[in-house]
Amino acid sequence: MKIHKPTKPKGTKRKNDILDAFTRCVRKQGYAKTSMVDVAKEAKVFPSNLFYYFDSKDELLRLCFKEQCDVIVRGLEKTKNYDIEGKIEYVADFLFIESKSVNHFTTGFMYEAIGISISDPILSQYKTEMDNCCKRLLADVFVNIDAVESTRNEKAEILYSLLAGSKLNGYFDADHGPEHGKVAFKKVMRIFCNQDMQWPAN
Amino acid sequence: MKIHKPTKPKGTKRKNDILDAFTRCVRKQGYAKTSMVDVAKEAKVFPSNLFYYFDSKDELLRLCFKEQCDVIVRGLEKTKNYDIEGKIEYVADFLFIESKSVNHFTTGFMYEAIGISISDPILSQYKTEMDNCCKRLLADVFVNIDAVESTRNEKAEILYSLLAGSKLNGYFDADHGPEHGKVAFKKVMRIFCNQDMQWPAN
Repeated sequence: MKIHKPTKPKGTKRKNDILDAFTRCVRKQGYAKTSMVDVAKEAKVFPSNLFYYFDSKDELLRLCFKEQCDVIVRGLEKTKNYDIEGKIEYVADFLFIESKSVNHFTTGFMYEAIGISISDPILSQYKTEMDNCCKRLLADVFVNIDAVESTRNEKAEILYSLLAGSKLNGYFDADHGPEHGKVAFKKVMRIFCNQDMQWPAN
Repeated sequence: MKIHKPTKPKGTKRKNDILDAFTRCVRKQGYAKTSMVDVAKEAKVFPSNLFYYFDSKDELLRLCFKEQCDVIVRGLEKTKNYDIEGKIEYVADFLFIESKSVNHFTTGFMYEAIGISISDPILSQYKTEMDNCCKRLLADVFVNIDAVESTRNEKAEILYSLLAGSKLNGYFDADHGPEHGKVAFKKVMRIFCNQDMQWPAN
């Protein structure tokens, strides 16, 4: 007799279906206007069934936000496979070119969740963890350019802020969308990679 | 007989009291968790009375967000009174030093509202208007440095994105708070004001 062993914990598929349904609801109407009843309808389950898997809308948001933070960090980790010119191209493409995992919708979702993190310590902690990982990875880009660690960190800090701000502003401005943000981001990376440039003192 | 003419439309004081109460509620518990009943309690009015002045919580948010956008634009407008070194100092101080009108709370409020603008066209329009005004004012800083208008606009775009991102990231990161953001912002302004620097081509 052949025994079927489950490869995933019970209910994983149902949980993922609910998360997908939640994502579709947020995409259509934003997080604030999405209710647990909407999610249940979209996932074709009874609301009571949905609450068996997830305690609240906040829990759904946290799981999706954490997943998207991980996507960004895993993407930036790949930067280390390239030479300096390749790093510039890779980072700019990964962050600013629409893909399945990083696109207009995920950008909006991230900023909606970040808005809510202002009053949600768990979301805020996820954001801080992502920020620290990304800044460390960006600082590594300059390891053969700047001998001084504090300069590398400062450049990473600036690039990461520029990234956050240009994704945000580009989201709202059709005339200065992601392609425009990409060009500006690459220019600053090039300026920062120029070894002739004297880094300003405090 | 002396006739008293009202200097403000009837109910202005009450409206402002309600807006102040709303601000205090958001400061305490965030926008998402603030209800109209909370605002009514805080303003010491009956909820029905509150709805006489404001249709919804969204309307309160829009009014406060618009007001805060105007604070930023009016602040940056004063940049034109300074020489180049003064402009750098003034912009950095205005945006990064805690004051009555620009501080940790207003920063959090702005980003919470911007998160909601993702699915609110009116908020989103206010943000776009503020963005365009601020970028125009920042571009003017370089009027005696860059003859080419597109370079001035590109520098302004980058500085404005850097500003948005570093205010946002600094909000969540106690180790890299506003003072840290100010130093980084000034360094980039100084790099951009250096006339020896060759601006990268596309």
